[in-house]
Order: sequence, then structure tokens, then C-alpha cells
Amino acid sequence: MAGNTFGTIFKITTFGESHGVALGAVVDGCPPNIEINEEIIQKELDKRKPGQSKFVTQRKEEDEIEILSGVFEGKTTGTPIGLLIKNIDQKSKDYENIKNKFRPGHADITYQEKYGIRDYRGGGRASARETAMRVAGGAIAKQVLNSMNIDVKSGVVQVGKIEAENINFDTEKNEFNFLDDSKVFELEEFFKTLIKNQDSIGARILINIAGMPAGIGSPVFSKLDAELAKALMSVNAVKAVEIGMGAKVASMKGSENRDLITKDGFNSNNSGGILGGISNGDEINLYASLKPTSSISQKTSTIDTENNEVELEIKGRHDPCVGLRAAPILEAMTSICILDQILLDRGQCFDVPRKFD
Amino acid sequence: MAGNTFGTIFKITTFGESHGVALGAVVDGCPPNIEINEEIIQKELDKRKPGQSKFVTQRKEEDEIEILSGVFEGKTTGTPIGLLIKNIDQKSKDYENIKNKFRPGHADITYQEKYGIRDYRGGGRASARETAMRVAGGAIAKQVLNSMNIDVKSGVVQVGKIEAENINFDTEKNEFNFLDDSKVFELEEFFKTLIKNQDSIGARILINIAGMPAGIGSPVFSKLDAELAKALMSVNAVKAVEIGMGAKVASMKGSENRDLITKDGFNSNNSGGILGGISNGDEINLYASLKPTSSISQKTSTIDTENNEVELEIKGRHDPCVGLRAAPILEAMTSICILDQILLDRGQCFDVPRKFD
Amino acid sequence: MAGNTFGTIFKITTFGESHGVALGAVVDGCPPNIEINEEIIQKELDKRKPGQSKFVTQRKEEDEIEILSGVFEGKTTGTPIGLLIKNIDQKSKDYENIKNKFRPGHADITYQEKYGIRDYRGGGRASARETAMRVAGGAIAKQVLNSMNIDVKSGVVQVGKIEAENINFDTEKNEFNFLDDSKVFELEEFFKTLIKNQDSIGARILINIAGMPAGIGSPVFSKLDAELAKALMSVNAVKAVEIGMGAKVASMKGSENRDLITKDGFNSNNSGGILGGISNGDEINLYASLKPTSSISQKTSTIDTENNEVELEIKGRHDPCVGLRAAPILEAMTSICILDQILLDRGQCFDVPRKFD
Amino acid sequence: MAGNTFGTIFKITTFGESHGVALGAVVDGCPPNIEINEEIIQKELDKRKPGQSKFVTQRKEEDEIEILSGVFEGKTTGTPIGLLIKNIDQKSKDYENIKNKFRPGHADITYQEKYGIRDYRGGGRASARETAMRVAGGAIAKQVLNSMNIDVKSGVVQVGKIEAENINFDTEKNEFNFLDDSKVFELEEFFKTLIKNQDSIGARILINIAGMPAGIGSPVFSKLDAELAKALMSVNAVKAVEIGMGAKVASMKGSENRDLITKDGFNSNNSGGILGGISNGDEINLYASLKPTSSISQKTSTIDTENNEVELEIKGRHDPCVGLRAAPILEAMTSICILDQILLDRGQCFDVPRKFD
Repeated sequence: MAGNTFGTIFKITTFGESHGVALGAVVDGCPPNIEINEEIIQKELDKRKPGQSKFVTQRKEEDEIEILSGVFEGKTTGTPIGLLIKNIDQKSKDYENIKNKFRPGHADITYQEKYGIRDYRGGGRASARETAMRVAGGAIAKQVLNSMNIDVKSGVVQVGKIEAENINFDTEKNEFNFLDDSKVFELEEFFKTLIKNQDSIGARILINIAGMPAGIGSPVFSKLDAELAKALMSVNAVKAVEIGMGAKVASMKGSENRDLITKDGFNSNNSGGILGGISNGDEINLYASLKPTSSISQKTSTIDTENNEVELEIKGRHDPCVGLRAAPILEAMTSICILDQILLDRGQCFDVPRKFD
Repeated sequence: MAGNTFGTIFKITTFGESHGVALGAVVDGCPPNIEINEEIIQKELDKRKPGQSKFVTQRKEEDEIEILSGVFEGKTTGTPIGLLIKNIDQKSKDYENIKNKFRPGHADITYQEKYGIRDYRGGGRASARETAMRVAGGAIAKQVLNSMNIDVKSGVVQVGKIEAENINFDTEKNEFNFLDDSKVFELEEFFKTLIKNQDSIGARILINIAGMPAGIGSPVFSKLDAELAKALMSVNAVKAVEIGMGAKVASMKGSENRDLITKDGFNSNNSGGILGGISNGDEINLYASLKPTSSISQKTSTIDTENNEVELEIKGRHDPCVGLRAAPILEAMTSICILDQILLDRGQCFDVPRKFD
Repeated sequence: MAGNTFGTIFKITTFGESHGVALGAVVDGCPPNIEINEEIIQKELDKRKPGQSKFVTQRKEEDEIEILSGVFEGKTTGTPIGLLIKNIDQKSKDYENIKNKFRPGHADITYQEKYGIRDYRGGGRASARETAMRVAGGAIAKQVLNSMNIDVKSGVVQVGKIEAENINFDTEKNEFNFLDDSKVFELEEFFKTLIKNQDSIGARILINIAGMPAGIGSPVFSKLDAELAKALMSVNAVKAVEIGMGAKVASMKGSENRDLITKDGFNSNNSGGILGGISNGDEINLYASLKPTSSISQKTSTIDTENNEVELEIKGRHDPCVGLRAAPILEAMTSICILDQILLDRGQCFDVPRKFD
Repeated sequence: MAGNTFGTIFKITTFGESHGVALGAVVDGCPPNIEINEEIIQKELDKRKPGQSKFVTQRKEEDEIEILSGVFEGKTTGTPIGLLIKNIDQKSKDYENIKNKFRPGHADITYQEKYGIRDYRGGGRASARETAMRVAGGAIAKQVLNSMNIDVKSGVVQVGKIEAENINFDTEKNEFNFLDDSKVFELEEFFKTLIKNQDSIGARILINIAGMPAGIGSPVFSKLDAELAKALMSVNAVKAVEIGMGAKVASMKGSENRDLITKDGFNSNNSGGILGGISNGDEINLYASLKPTSSISQKTSTIDTENNEVELEIKGRHDPCVGLRAAPILEAMTSICILDQILLDRGQCFDVPRKFD
């Protein structure tokens, strides 16, 4: 497994480098007779697109999606769905100066070590541009989930020391995709200083699944939280994944952490909707923490491919906070993951009566 | 994938319920000619065994391992290694009173929902007893890793609000498997009160990989951190997985987070030894946060299988802090995961010169 | 994938050498609430057992199956089913003389080449004894298939030049498991001479699936016939797999080969019940051709591990025709394969109305 | 697994319908630093192209391949290789008359049954046009195999009752891709009559692997012959797969079938180069039998989607013998399969000294 495929029944395989001919994906195992078209996918892609807010990169990525197969007269046929985005507006020359230099915090050095060869232009395969195809595949998964009344949402809950206090998914989207509108002014001031200092900042994202049926996930190694942890941690820059109370459980007592069960459901949701690796019917809450962009304009030192210490100045247009644009990607991975787990469950446990039947 | 197999080349499949006939595992894909025997495995199992400290459950689990196949004249033959631990000293009667009741914080209710049937005795397949076979499989992985000079260590770094300050793997193991000896007295006091209050507490564990070669892990969906996140999150009670600086990155700046590269290596290790999903040759640091044991002696309320609200008193012998015994399990999963990734890398990139060749 | 696992949702993993401690299997992904017990499995195992006819080996293999997990109060729980057969009556000394010699037609030389080490006793992992666990796993698959009214049967249709003319599954089983009773006398005469000459003979087996629903199998690489071909070709000694008219199609015309469709079904079944890799609702017919036993008593020459040419006399108790005992193994593999494909189909196409719903 | 991916380390995923926008493939897990370009792939594709002989379809398929990713400055980078062929010259109107009718011998009826929806134009995903991407992927596998001095060849050995007697891979390719030149005149006469009669014929193909190292393949379920059987049986129209002596073993004696071993190698090659599922270092010989084209011009009867019996006249341009164009496809599948098995072996058994090291 060379790592470019995710899923067992609902399965996505992606390809493409930042400055190559095109990005692409194959979505295999999609249930048939689901309505799908370019607009549905494009809508999700546009959420991830750079240049939508003054606080993200102004790099232009049109990301126009084309469906090549697997859809007939507006519906999925059950055969593989081929997806393509042609690369345009690639400024490869921006990268000539880093051809032989390893940018700190980037995969330049590890790709070189692993493969003995790498496409250095724009980070090649390691570029976050790859995530466009995750979003495209996720848009298809979401269509299937919607037909099951399952809804996946997400947003930023922390940037630097600024944390959301009253989380609200229903407000108008602000420029930071932040789930607490009351912090927007504070965020604006923070970003102005950050950008002036040519620096970047990390972020924490909440992903919420509403309408999740109980009984999804498999025991032991394929626990639902384990599969979700893999799905989220596979997204560029993610360094921590938490479920429910997450890392806070280390300082909690059993008497406060365990969610009591009443005949009307659970009294609390510290577990994040998963018990023993299987969904309990409650909402699922996941958190991903993303590191700050490593590509900042501040000059720095590094080594080149000949192991000489050299000066480095990174050009190009970079996000001061990759977290701001990460939410749709994490939503996509979450959607792909839970749909696959739902289909696996239908495969083994088709006869067990369940909520979503 | 019903979830009881982990890995692609080096692959472990486990089975067995807490109060069934036996626990077992099949380790497939092990490189041949590796020295293995029952004592090597038993030594690892004994680390996980209950009753080794007065602060863990005094339940007796002998966990005597038997090798059934795949080893000939003391060496692995490359064929599957069958492993067995017979269940003895199972007090199934302790569980008669919860036969029809769902314990809060446990998988009782989700297994019932998923399968429509469950072995309620001792948690059945969802019991942490299942992890014995992970440790057994991990002992084999460790033998192979040792032959490559890779060393996986772990220990507790947080219990409640008590955090390790000076992490040291080399001190004598204390009763808490805590990596900072200076906190032992404080921990003892804390546990005395905890046990008196019939309560339990969460914990945070550090897993460290020394001697890790560069170039391991695959791009995009099978990033080394993604595979490790799945491996650790699959362990019972884990609610958060972090790599390197982990969740702290949300409040870090790019200028402080990115690790500068010099000709003698990296200046810092905020990344936890992984860049773009591929190991960079530095030590790998992982953290897992475990929730407090849900089975505490305090009386509580819950529902039964007929949806009636009922009183519940959990009997049996339970750990006040599952985290104390979790370290060997997390080490095992880490070992299995990285060995598998190393073998996958050898499969695809056999011709690329690398550190460990 | 080191090769000891088969299947995706319904998944069997086996281990064990001919003269080791035990043989075992893990059946994962079995639908819950299926009645299973040791007798049901034992009944299938007894069909494969040596010593049931005077024309098969008189070697004693008790093959007593033990269920270790995954079954609670007589029903599958959806968790992995551990299975064990302890090895007894192993005459390892019979093999001392071949410790350093490679038997022609056997895997001795290829295991040595692949792994650089091998358990030479009784063929080790390469022994046909391994197939006992396939039969045990197949017995479980059959129970699930029976609950769907699908019936898998098999028998011998050719031994040497003796071919079945009127195939009949309903007659009493004869000593050759031959599907045409009128050939039994001829077979008896043939085997008497064969045994006197210390020689062995090949055979061809028919496997028939009745009650097969339409729509099973996946396009392109996982065609139902492709999966079945792998399943059957993985059985020791099989050198050819055919579907429907099989190899005869090379000399057939399109006008005679294609099965015409009427409103009452297909006019003929040359396709063997599979079109474009998907079942068409008709009966499925498969053929496997097995080579003659390579272990015959005639003296021969070979080489040893030091590459010297040496004389070889194979001792032990061997079948003059492994084909006679292969039918239950091929039935088992067929059952496991189609059940897995049915569950995969339910996973992806759960909403499409189909025959067996 | 919805069936559009093949392989574990070296892995191909394909998509595309006969009359859709494009056909495509993703080749993941290719070793890095292998020379590859469009011409190398195009050369293999041209072997499969229709219209190269007067005895194959004159349908025009340009099949111009485009590499979208994974290759940098003429060499593979180890990242996924995206491949695309745009569909042109598709005469979808030829298929309007079969929109609601099920062609006998085709997958029309089974796709409808499985998915409840199908792209009827040119057979959609079930069209043999899909195999173009197998050939493209196979071309990449062949480049890697060539660097290991492994050579995969193939040709037709039987058409109807005309069988090759003296098999010779080295003669000039004739119009039938037949491996015995002395039969060409006979074949020409046979095809003239066949075409006049608007009929079609089956064929048998030999695939030969020279330079195959010993030790490749895995025990039990992933025997090399089992994996190859799946690979070949997955190709459209294949109804039988044989290894070495194939189906003939049913009438052979052990004394004649087993290949004796001398210090200079094997005395014969009845096994086809595989013992116990592992290559023995000898040449590998495989046979695939393909059914005659079901689409012939003769009028016939069938049913429509409303279950009415109707007349059917198949238009379009079809091969009188699909076998003639199948050889490059079978070569491609063989190449992909053995390369993947070689890489898996390197993963597990990297330390065992072997022929090709």
C-alpha cells in the first residue's frame, strides 16, 4: 500500500502533483443511483479555494472539476467515478531557488530520502494542493450521507490563544471560518500583526457529525475512532486528533467522564459519540490540531542536497494559517470514513435492525 | 474488514473474549530467521499483567503464552505464528448482575446495537483483556526491530493534574510506570484518596522510538503519523493521539514550530520525527491520552435491555487508572505499526540507499 | 500480505504446520446470530478426513475441532471465531530421511529458497493438512449460505481417462466421491493397478452452486469468476480452474456458446452462471483439475540442500489420488468466496432490490 | 472492494466507460527512478489496438495515452502515476437499439440486476475497452521487470480446432498473433468462412515468463498461481486458466507429472515453474482460454428491460475472435501480478539471499 488509497468499500484513490499536468481521483464502491454532478462537487471545492478571504493566500487556484466516468444521466452507476482537475496558473519558477534546498518543516528532505528523487516544484505530491481531490471525493460521500440524513459540519475553534467559547454552527460564515462570532474582531487584530511579522499560526478544528446512526465501527483494530484518527491525521499539518473530551480525559475522573444512560439517551457526551469503537447514536465530535504553515517569508538557514548549510528565502503565496482552509478537507475525510464504515456494517450486519433502516 | 486484523505485510489478527475459552493471535508476514520463543513474548506480557503494583487491579491473569506454529528450532520460518493464551480464573458470576444492564462508559450498549447479540461476561470481546494478544504480537515485532537497532520505549507522563517535568526513561520502573521519579510520592497520595473515593483517573502516555530510520511512511493517506494514530487510537480508552508538539501546535507560530535543518541534523524536534508523513531520521515521539476507567464501585443509574431505568452496582476487580498498564500495549501497537511500514518501504523502495541498509 | 488470509468482509486467516502443535483459524466478519457449534463444523471436517475409503490414505488424522471464541450460547456474535485442531498422531520420524532432501513435485525446495529456513516435517506449512482449517471455515460460511437458501455441492468427474457421463449429485456417496455411479467398478479396477504400481493419478472436480442470487461479483479485477479462480487455485495440487464450458470455449463458436435469454431465464448455461464477472442467477459450475500426488513410493533421484544428487525413497502414508479428498476443500473455498462477495454486494448495493431480499 | 483495484504494493486502479469522457488509471507503488514516458506505454497499447489486421475489428480506437503525474524528468518518483486516454470516435448511436435490450453473452443483464442502473452505450464499464488501461499499467510493470531481467511474452496457441504444434516466440508476428507460423494459411481459410457466416470463435493463449526468480509467491491463499489465476480470469471472456500442464494433470500419473530435480535444475517443467505456490526459478507457463465474441451479426432473440421477448440485431464493429487481441492484455495482467508479488517478497524476505539480488 503506497498510500494513495483510502477506504475498503467506499474507496478513494488520488494522484497528482502541485505543478504537474493535473490532479485526479477515482472514487470506487459508491452506491448506485445517487444524484451527482459537477456543480455538487464544485460547491464543496469552492469552500477550500484560496483567495476567498483576505487572511488566506491570494494564490489563484481555479480547481475546476470534471467527472470522467461512473455517472450516467446524473446518477452514479456503481462503477468507479473518475475525477479530474487540470493544473493551471502554476508558477513553477517560484520554486527554482529551492530546487536543491530542503525547506524546514516540509517534506522535501523526507521525499528525497525515501525515493532518491522528487518533484521539487511547489512541494510536488506533498503539496496541500493534493487535498482538493479529498474534498471532491468527500462531496460524493456527503451526497450519500445526506440520503441517510447524516450531516457533517466543521469549523475553527482555536487560533493561537484565541479559543471559541460559544460554539455555533449556524451563524454566517466569517472570514476565519471561526465557530464563535464574538471573537472575529480579536482575530482580525491578531492576523494583522501576524502578517506584518511574516509569521504563521496553528489552529484547532472541530468536526461534528449529526444524525449518526448507532452500531457503526468495528471492534479492536478498526474502531470507528481509530479509523477517524487515521483519516484526520492523514491531512497535511495535522499533529493531534481528539475524540469527545480528547486529551482532557487525562485529568478527568471516572465519575465525571462516563456518560450516564437514561431511557431518553445519554445524559452527556464526553465520549464524543463512540463507545468501544462503535457509534452510540449520539453526535460525534472530533478535533484536529494543525501546525502553523512552515513556509513563511522570514529568511532562515537550512541545508542543500549536497549537505551544505545555506540561506533560504521562501517565495510564493502562502497561508498565514492553513487551519482556516482545512475545515472542508477534514469534513471530506470524515465523510469518506464514516460512509465506508456504514457500508462495511451493512455488509456484515445487514440483518440487524438499526436506527437508519 | 471486521476489524480484527492490523497491518499489510506484518499483520496481526486476534480473537477471544474475556471469559471465553482462550485468547489468540496470528502473526503473519514476519521476516524469517528471527529468534523467537515463549520467554521473549512472556516477558512483554508480564509487563502488562495485573497485580504487579498495589495501584492496579489485583485480578489474577496468568496470561501464559503458547506458540502454536511458525517457529522452528527457535527461529521464525516466515509462515504464520499462531499464539494462544487459555483463559483461567474467570469469575463470570461477577457479571450475572449486569447481564441485562448497560454499564455507562462501556461498549455493552453499542455491541448490542451493532450485533443484536453480545457476550456480556467481562465485557466479552470489548474487554481490555483482548490487548494481551497485541502485546504478544508486539513482542515479535520488537524482536525484528531490535535486529534493526530500533528501540521502542514508553511510560506515563500525566495522571490527573500531576505531570512529568523531567522525562527519564532510564530510571528504575516505579509503581506508576511514571517517567518522572520525583512525582512518585505525590502520585501515591493521590491514588490513596482516589481509591478511597471509589473513583478512577485518566492518564497520558509517551511512546518514544529511538533509532528510527528516515524514509518510512507513505504519502497522502498512509502517512506514518496517520498509521500510528490509528494504531494507538485502536487501544481501549484512548481518546487523543498527538505527534511531537501535538495539540500545542494550535497556539504556536511557524517561526518557532518548524525545526531548522543543519548538516548535523535537526535543531529541534517539534515535528516528532515525521515530516509530510515520512520519518525524518529523528526520534519519534507520540502521546496517547486514556480516559479514566468507567467501571468504578460507586453506585449509578443506567438502563437495561428492555429500556427500563435501573440501579447499577459494578462488582469485579478494576484498575483505578487503566493508563498505568497501557504503556506496554501502546508500545506493542507502535512496534507492529512501524515494522509493517518499514517492510512496505522495503517492498517499494528496495533500491534506494538508506540509513538502515 | 503474507498469504494466510482470504476475504474482505467474511475473512479467514489460518496457521499451523503438519507436525506442529496445532492448526488454527480465525473467521472474522461472520454475520451475527447464525447458529454454529462444534458438531456442524466437525461434520464437514469428517468428509475430508483420511481413512474413510480404502482408496485414500490410512493415515489417522482425528481433526477434532474446538471453537475458542465468537460463539455465545450457540450463536455467532459477529466477533472473530477462533478455531483449533490439536495435532496428534504425527509421525515426524518418517521425515527424518528427507530432512536435507528436496522431494520432487513438492514445495520443499521453494520454501527453502524463499525463506532460507523450513520446517521439513511432513511438508510443514505446505502440507495439505493445512486445508483442514479451510474446511472448518467453509462450514461456517455454509451455515450462513444455507440461511440464504444457497447450496454448494461437489464431486469428482474425472480420474485419469475415466470421465463421468451422467452427473448426479443425489446418489449415495461412493468410495471415490465420483458423480457417476456407473463408473465405480471401472474405478476400482483402475485403483488396484495404480496402487500395485506405487503410482498416483490426477483428478477433475466439479463444484456446483444452486440458489445463487443474481448481481454478485464486482466489475473488472474482482469479477466473481476471478475471485473464485483465486479461491480454487489456492488449494494444493490444483493446476487448472474452469468456469462453465471452461477450456472448451477455445473451440466453440459464438452462435453456440452464448446463452440465449428468454422471459423464463437462460436457454442454456455455457457461461457457468457468470456474465461480465457478475452472477446471472443461474447455477454456477466450476471445475478444478488436481495433479497426481507427487509423493509415491517409487524410488527416485533428487538433490539435497548441499546441491548433491541423491537417491530418495519417500515413506509415510500418502493418497494415490488427492483429488478424491479435495471436493470438501474446494466446496469450502467456494463457500467462503461467494459469501464474502455477497456481503460486499450488500455493503455497496444495499438499496437495489434483488432476488434474495 | 468494488473491484477496480488490483495489487497490494504495485497497485493499479482503473476507471472509465466505453462511451464516456475518458478511460483512466492510477498506478501506485511503482519503485522510484524507473525510466518511463508516453512512448514506452503507447508501444504496448498499439499492440492491443483494433484495426491492425484484417481479421480483427476495423473500429478505430486511437488510444492516445497521457501521463498526468508520478513521472518527473523521465523517471518515476514513487508517487502515483495518473494515466488518461480520452474517448474519441465513439459511435453511441450504434447502441440506441440495444438501450432496453439485454444482449446474450454480455453483462447488460447482470449490471442491470446488480446496480439497478447501467450505461448501455458500448457495454459501458463492461466493455473490453476497459482493458486498454490494464495494458498501460502493464507497460509500466514491464519496465520495472525488464530492469530485473524478467521477460513476459505471449501469443495464441489455439483457435477453434487449430492448435499450435511447434511453439515459437521468435518468429515475425503474423496477423493472428499465432505462435506456430505453419498454421497461418489454415487460419486464414478458417477466418474467411467464419466471417462469411457472421460467427465468432474462441481461442487459447500462452503466457510465458522468462528470467523468473525463485522464491516469489506466498503460501496458502496467495499462492503465485492463485494470484495469477485471478489476474487472468479477471480479463473479459476468459473462462479457464491453467498453469503448466493445466487440465491435462487430471489424466497424468505422479511418476510422469513430477519434475525431477538435478543439480543443474529441473528435468522437465510440468509444474509450469511453480511449486507449492512459490516460483521455482524455472520459466512460468500459463494458459487462458477465451470464449468466442458474443456480439455477432446473426439475428437472435432476447428479452428487454420489461421482460418481453424481442428480436435483436447487434450492429457495431466486433472482433470475430477476441482472443487475437487478448495476448497483450494477458501479458499486462501477468506483469502487474508478478511485479507486485516480487515487491511483497522483498518486503518480508529482504534478508534472504536470492537469485535476483
